[in-house]
Amino acid sequence: MKPHGPIPPGFAADADGMLLIGGARADRLADAAGDTPLFVYVGALLAARIAEWRAAFPETVQLHYAMKANPYPPLLAFMAERVDGFDVASGGELRAALASGMAAEHISFAGPGKRDRELEAAIAAGATLNLESIGEATRALAVAARLGITPRLAVRVNPDFDLKGSGMKMGGGAKPFGVDAAEVPALVRRLIDAGADWRGFHIFAGSQALDAAAIAETQGQTVALAARLANDVGAPPPLVNIGGGMGVPYFPGDTAVDAVAVGAALADTLAARDPVLATSRFAMELGRWLVAEAGVYLTRIVDRKVSHGETFLVTDGGLHHQLAASGNFGTVIRRNYPIALANRFGGEPAETVSVVGCLCTPLDRLGDQVALPAAQVGDLVALFQAGAYGATASPAAFLGQGPAREMLV
Amino acid sequence: MKPHGPIPPGFAADADGMLLIGGARADRLADAAGDTPLFVYVGALLAARIAEWRAAFPETVQLHYAMKANPYPPLLAFMAERVDGFDVASGGELRAALASGMAAEHISFAGPGKRDRELEAAIAAGATLNLESIGEATRALAVAARLGITPRLAVRVNPDFDLKGSGMKMGGGAKPFGVDAAEVPALVRRLIDAGADWRGFHIFAGSQALDAAAIAETQGQTVALAARLANDVGAPPPLVNIGGGMGVPYFPGDTAVDAVAVGAALADTLAARDPVLATSRFAMELGRWLVAEAGVYLTRIVDRKVSHGETFLVTDGGLHHQLAASGNFGTVIRRNYPIALANRFGGEPAETVSVVGCLCTPLDRLGDQVALPAAQVGDLVALFQAGAYGATASPAAFLGQGPAREMLV
Repeated sequence: MKPHGPIPPGFAADADGMLLIGGARADRLADAAGDTPLFVYVGALLAARIAEWRAAFPETVQLHYAMKANPYPPLLAFMAERVDGFDVASGGELRAALASGMAAEHISFAGPGKRDRELEAAIAAGATLNLESIGEATRALAVAARLGITPRLAVRVNPDFDLKGSGMKMGGGAKPFGVDAAEVPALVRRLIDAGADWRGFHIFAGSQALDAAAIAETQGQTVALAARLANDVGAPPPLVNIGGGMGVPYFPGDTAVDAVAVGAALADTLAARDPVLATSRFAMELGRWLVAEAGVYLTRIVDRKVSHGETFLVTDGGLHHQLAASGNFGTVIRRNYPIALANRFGGEPAETVSVVGCLCTPLDRLGDQVALPAAQVGDLVALFQAGAYGATASPAAFLGQGPAREMLV
Repeated sequence: MKPHGPIPPGFAADADGMLLIGGARADRLADAAGDTPLFVYVGALLAARIAEWRAAFPETVQLHYAMKANPYPPLLAFMAERVDGFDVASGGELRAALASGMAAEHISFAGPGKRDRELEAAIAAGATLNLESIGEATRALAVAARLGITPRLAVRVNPDFDLKGSGMKMGGGAKPFGVDAAEVPALVRRLIDAGADWRGFHIFAGSQALDAAAIAETQGQTVALAARLANDVGAPPPLVNIGGGMGVPYFPGDTAVDAVAVGAALADTLAARDPVLATSRFAMELGRWLVAEAGVYLTRIVDRKVSHGETFLVTDGGLHHQLAASGNFGTVIRRNYPIALANRFGGEPAETVSVVGCLCTPLDRLGDQVALPAAQVGDLVALFQAGAYGATASPAAFLGQGPAREMLV
């Protein structure tokens, strides 16, 4: 038997042992969707998460949603009413953000390979471009001149530090992201001299960290770096996007990040900040932390078989919707995401089984030798932490399967 | 500097140093497609590969194409006229196979999580189901009875051996694929007794191997296993699908599999086969080996930047089309796929660069510290071995990017 990650809070069973997702029975949600596999995102959990963040962090800090984590249109519309801005990473995401109702002035666009047509779309809409390089800055200024529009331009900074313990390091040394800190002041002065509306800095050192002290330390370094750069520029940045970093517990032994501690440390950091940042606003940019726990992936057991003494539950889902949960995206060692039998939720484990997807590849494993209540064909398996980097971060067309259904409840 | 995999044969430059793909200039292909990124598949290379196989293998062995490797409809139609059968892995692939012009009687459907509606579609069309379990056999017989159709049923066998050195092991021990060999004879007798049209065995021990001797040894074991099972059944299998196994060289030091040696060994194996298989036909099922080398992925350089002394070429492509090349699918250690600058093809390396995609994630790296001729914004990067497990085996919707263009030339 191998352990699985912790089932997130907010989920319980009804008297029949059926998992309730946002108060609705998992089997009825699957029926309502018309088929499995199905991603269910719970609005109440999204709202609670946002409220948790707002309670933990200083009122003066804005909350931005990094929509790459989950761009499902109804979820975007839900978030647009509740957060202070969206961060997008492509022209496609920009269109989706605008369609969600988020005002362009609260949208910022980062990403290392922006094409001219994407720069043009952002400038024309009035979104802020987080410039990733000197070359991109030159192209953005040229596009703006051609359009006759004053562009909103921020500079993404490649910091000289990274976020310790983060699953994804975005800073510290040579990176494709942002402008090396040493080159930033000259670039900002050039933007200002060119007549651009300089919006400030974007500094993102890493993501998917669970250690509050490490995140707090990085936020302190980030604010200090912003101050140093602002002093070099000789002007205060209107906005400092200090990135995200807060992760979620996917694996056995992981524990939730202490948001209250991170928020308290950030309050202290901001209270003691350099005077050059006195008038600056600050934003945190969170994707995974905001939406992962609000999502459940439901997949139905199609076959139950025994091979050489091991029991396999074969489902109608798989890595084409849950690439990261299968262990094939950004992880070296495969470990089990939180998983349960939805129709015997909370029941005592009765057997050790491997839960596999329907794809004809040994990579397609959703739960490796996990202990579950006895399962039958037709039962529903639930994978948790499925609200982020699921549907769109997986190869939906692989083996002709196509995308999963999605719903916001 | 880190090495990259070997550029496959069949590619050369014109007098301007521009990569020719199927005789056409890479830049003109990109223009004709209207945009990059672009997958180009070369019909002449596909045909040459098929001819290579037919020259190497006994005439009595059929060649099946495992369409999961590349289901691009024009490529499927091209292959349908040139191979003896298609292997599909979902209801969606079955529809695409039928639409390509391949006759249903030459289509077989394997995959561990077939749903009733997929069983029904295959039986109604007259395709062969490679049954993956006792439970699936029971469901298939029930569906056939309901439809009033004699189903074409083969049994996928989970062999007691695997393919040594294979990138994907599909046999040897507890697996979600197929029926354990010990249980196969009773299942086949049950199918025959139920009035099904028993089509034989499907035995697939592994894939992506480069060692001809290992493949030949596995094919010998496979034929011997088929004979043992046939003797236990007391009837000859009409067809024995002995799987594939032949891989392609992706990485530094990899060399092409010696197809002539594999074919000669298979001829010896079949000449010496047990009399119970005297009337059986045999098929090899190949995906990657048939199509990988015929494909090139072209992506344009959007930015060139230096960070802490390292040069990055940022392209408009990325892991959303080339997940495996980025090192994030089925590999533990990232190594460089074959990569070149298309517009200075064959030119002397002038610098060490990292080629990254446009996605805002450090996972999106197409070439890590590779030596290339000097590259500029607007240049085209070519990734080779892109004909298999590219477009559909990657998360095309990630970060709102969408699929690449594809063309068959």
